[in-house]
Amino acid sequence: MSSPEVISEQAASAEQLRELAQQLRVDSVRAAAAANSGHPTSSMSAADLMAVLMTRYLRYDFDAPENPANDHLVFSKGHASPLLYSVYKAAGAIDDEELLTFREFGSHLQGHPTPEIPWVDVATGSLGQGLPISIGIALAGKRLESADFRVWVLCGDSELAEGSMWEAFEHAGHAGLDNMIAIVDVNRLGQRGPTMHEWDTSSWAARAAACGWDVQEIDGHDLEAIDVAYTRAMAADVPAVIFARTKKGSGVAAVEDQPNQHGKPLADPEAAVEELGGISSLRVELKSPPEARPYEIAQTPVDRPVYEVGEKVATRAAYGDALAWLGSIDEKVVALDGEVGNSTYAERFAAKHPDRFFEMYIAEQQMVAAGVGLQTRGWKPFASSFGAFLSRAYDFVRMGAISDADLKLCGSHVGVSIGPDGPSQMALEDIASLRAVFGSVILYPSDANQAVQLLDAMRQHRGISYMRTTREATPVLYGSGESFEIGGSHTVRSGDDVTLIGAGITLRECLTAADELAGKGISARVVDLYSVKPVDAEAILTAAGETKALITVEDHWPEGGIGETVAGVLAEAASGAPLVRLAVSGRPGSGPPADLLAAAGIDAASIVAAVERALA
Amino acid sequence: MSSPEVISEQAASAEQLRELAQQLRVDSVRAAAAANSGHPTSSMSAADLMAVLMTRYLRYDFDAPENPANDHLVFSKGHASPLLYSVYKAAGAIDDEELLTFREFGSHLQGHPTPEIPWVDVATGSLGQGLPISIGIALAGKRLESADFRVWVLCGDSELAEGSMWEAFEHAGHAGLDNMIAIVDVNRLGQRGPTMHEWDTSSWAARAAACGWDVQEIDGHDLEAIDVAYTRAMAADVPAVIFARTKKGSGVAAVEDQPNQHGKPLADPEAAVEELGGISSLRVELKSPPEARPYEIAQTPVDRPVYEVGEKVATRAAYGDALAWLGSIDEKVVALDGEVGNSTYAERFAAKHPDRFFEMYIAEQQMVAAGVGLQTRGWKPFASSFGAFLSRAYDFVRMGAISDADLKLCGSHVGVSIGPDGPSQMALEDIASLRAVFGSVILYPSDANQAVQLLDAMRQHRGISYMRTTREATPVLYGSGESFEIGGSHTVRSGDDVTLIGAGITLRECLTAADELAGKGISARVVDLYSVKPVDAEAILTAAGETKALITVEDHWPEGGIGETVAGVLAEAASGAPLVRLAVSGRPGSGPPADLLAAAGIDAASIVAAVERALA
Repeated sequence: MSSPEVISEQAASAEQLRELAQQLRVDSVRAAAAANSGHPTSSMSAADLMAVLMTRYLRYDFDAPENPANDHLVFSKGHASPLLYSVYKAAGAIDDEELLTFREFGSHLQGHPTPEIPWVDVATGSLGQGLPISIGIALAGKRLESADFRVWVLCGDSELAEGSMWEAFEHAGHAGLDNMIAIVDVNRLGQRGPTMHEWDTSSWAARAAACGWDVQEIDGHDLEAIDVAYTRAMAADVPAVIFARTKKGSGVAAVEDQPNQHGKPLADPEAAVEELGGISSLRVELKSPPEARPYEIAQTPVDRPVYEVGEKVATRAAYGDALAWLGSIDEKVVALDGEVGNSTYAERFAAKHPDRFFEMYIAEQQMVAAGVGLQTRGWKPFASSFGAFLSRAYDFVRMGAISDADLKLCGSHVGVSIGPDGPSQMALEDIASLRAVFGSVILYPSDANQAVQLLDAMRQHRGISYMRTTREATPVLYGSGESFEIGGSHTVRSGDDVTLIGAGITLRECLTAADELAGKGISARVVDLYSVKPVDAEAILTAAGETKALITVEDHWPEGGIGETVAGVLAEAASGAPLVRLAVSGRPGSGPPADLLAAAGIDAASIVAAVERALA
Repeated sequence: MSSPEVISEQAASAEQLRELAQQLRVDSVRAAAAANSGHPTSSMSAADLMAVLMTRYLRYDFDAPENPANDHLVFSKGHASPLLYSVYKAAGAIDDEELLTFREFGSHLQGHPTPEIPWVDVATGSLGQGLPISIGIALAGKRLESADFRVWVLCGDSELAEGSMWEAFEHAGHAGLDNMIAIVDVNRLGQRGPTMHEWDTSSWAARAAACGWDVQEIDGHDLEAIDVAYTRAMAADVPAVIFARTKKGSGVAAVEDQPNQHGKPLADPEAAVEELGGISSLRVELKSPPEARPYEIAQTPVDRPVYEVGEKVATRAAYGDALAWLGSIDEKVVALDGEVGNSTYAERFAAKHPDRFFEMYIAEQQMVAAGVGLQTRGWKPFASSFGAFLSRAYDFVRMGAISDADLKLCGSHVGVSIGPDGPSQMALEDIASLRAVFGSVILYPSDANQAVQLLDAMRQHRGISYMRTTREATPVLYGSGESFEIGGSHTVRSGDDVTLIGAGITLRECLTAADELAGKGISARVVDLYSVKPVDAEAILTAAGETKALITVEDHWPEGGIGETVAGVLAEAASGAPLVRLAVSGRPGSGPPADLLAAAGIDAASIVAAVERALA
């Protein structure tokens, strides 16, 4: 191709904008044709919206994606990736050859955008996530950094059915995020047919307005109307949303506003390119970001918490104490909580570092999403709720791993040992589900001093990590000087007949059982497997070699937890050591913790009985 | 106590209603005091709302909870269980003695309501679920049964922050569910402090109205206003919501509208009871439900699908075909899909049985919730989406297990083998997360004929079951006459050097590997582990005894899937057989399925290499 015509904000004529929009359509069609898959029609509907945005509004230095003053551009409708990549080409960030590697094995231009691409903040493609994550980016700019950047989010209309989108509308309005601009590409057609509201944007508009947003409803193919709308949105002192009525596949008669044209290349891409005006290579000079502003974080000194051995402290309380301390030694630490800060003890962080605490109310999806957004700007988010309720945000954690997010989660009130509140409040699947997140770290401290150390390890670890904390106050076992690390374990008591492996509340039961067993002449080793993932395989195999049986004990369902982790280690080593896995064996109810532990078969008496059976 | 004063609709005076409301408060306080835990203040705020409801509106026969004409009463704010149980006492369904067993071990009156109680439809306590589940109950009444019952739902204000509540508002409005009446107890105070909107109900009201609901905003302690509001709500030809401003802890000065009074018994319950007028034993004669109406289900005959061995068919296509067939042999079968019916092939059910198909749009939480609601009335819901997106509804599945729900799930597009769409669309944690649901069944068919049989098994199985289907068309392996069952496995090829264990897409890779290994003089047994939970332990242990090593191969993360399931079986049997677990080993991208299977280390070549290492 010949050297490109360069257009910029001042110079861009209406005709040039129109040509740019057509180029974005053409390139979307071509990329999908090259891949023989993808979503060209979902890209074409929003081409006009992106043409005006990139030429006249978006402030972004593609040569310096790390520049903190850059605007953010998030494609919440991640399947419109051909359009995003076409924008990159028009911005000169990639060339035409790279554009056509779309969806090839090894290409960074995946089916849906991921941060493997330097200009992508977060992975999208699970609908309803881009907007709530963007709230986190906007919160960072507004509340922490006093920054000038704006967050532009391209949303689909289908994804407005996801409740998470309305958590985002609600939160952004509440937080007054005037740096958020959402653009909804209302192309009327979902994957399998018309959306619920088609082109009637009135219901969404009324809801967004009720959430405190500035709302506009426009024709998304009218370049002048788009321009006017962006100018008004920029000027709004509240978050702004533009509902833009568009046609899916716009510009190509064969697919424009036609059913059954979702998620596949055009049947005749060459004819489509011709209909759209042919291949072009307009090049847009984007507006530069302003000078980055320095900012200061208020620091309140907090001592490292230290607990006396034997003192009774809940690990959830240690979470709050330790987080407050970590906030004082690392200004990048921020905390979010789902309106249960007096239970998770995140309130202790909030009391010391109110500027870095985010009350997310009972909206766990928005909480985790905001964490993912915050970490895109280098913050270290710790997000807490009851472990059971983090399950609400499981898809957000899953996608966080694809985003390679640095996200720290804490789930309190785990297991049957919470007692009278009953099963709805008991996390019994959190280890299993969160272990099955790519690259995750799973920690389950057995006492308060250990929790403090492991939280500091989480702070220093980059990636997704999860700490499981206990409701009940349990005796402090370890001196504050003892050392624990991700991937470690601790042999709390030596013994050579049998090995009891527990963590958290069950370590206490293991120790009680070991006492009882000692009275029966059975010498039990007790291993604190506080790092469930990665796991200390060596300690397990050593115990398997040195004792006659292993008993794992966990306040969790039998599947995917400590027992299976240990089983995996043994089986892969072809150990042949007998293993008994004690885990919650039936649907629990309400009651005193001791009764529930006994009924679940994971209390000291159950352990003693299991040992006697195993050694018999 | 003396024999109770009985009040009924006609006779109930304003004074009696007031006394009844006070009794509900008194009993809530007493229950929490007896348990020394619970949520009395969250109960007291809604006592007036429930007093009017039970006396004048609710049609319910407590002696016959199975009566299909009964109204439904769902406490979406499940923590107000003391109030619900106090209503039961006032209705004569339980006595005072039983009321005071609240939260005792073994009592059905758990911390949060569960269907262990015959008058409770579904477990609540994870906020934001009762309303979306109630949508499913209302859909059953309106769309399937032409029934007269109404669904009354008591919601909290805090839970309005959950996006799932707005999925419910949206769906009910769209479906025109005039049998739904939501009552929001706006008591201003959440667990840790004020809610986002406190007593300003205008934002919620505007949003609910925009969703097509009849909306009222009232003083929730004004018995006359409540009465008027219920009458209007009953008459509305759309779903109705009443935002009732109340005071948490109302009636007792020490706690009324006070902070830090959430989720704990009153400090001085005796004084509170006295302040409220003392213990009483009013007994309400509820209105009787009308005669139950018969209804008919349109039946379209559909043949059982049969595929030829060797034909290439995707198991997701078999899901659609089989579901259409099951709908024709079992009129209780209904299907829901999250706007991807042309990918999951739920559309094939919809085409044959449109009256029993529910398009839930991209709202997976509402989809699963509606399934839970539908099954409360005896329907057998099959809910489908991409497996990856079912993770969005994980908390709803978790709670479904506490509800002992009969819920069938299908996740399509699992694993890296989906190819170019990339990781956001790949279910790689579905086995792990859904295995860790109490009592769940996990099936992963390896061909189309098997999928048909297993779907019929799911239909007949009562409980939560999950089928994982494959995007790609794979060769039919089994004749349509072969038999497969929950808990079974199938040895596809005999061999005595090594055992390859796969399911779904990896079974095909195992068979290819076995061919290659045969060429190298290695005899490989191939086991189709299509039932991952429950698992066929005997087949695994037999293979462990008869071959030199086991290789598991799965298109899933290493944690919590097939490999760990097998490891658990081996370790508990102290087998000592060497096990190699092949699973997806790194973050996948986009590309052709074969490239992705190879990169993940789970293709035939990887299996051959693993076998050679294991036998070396």
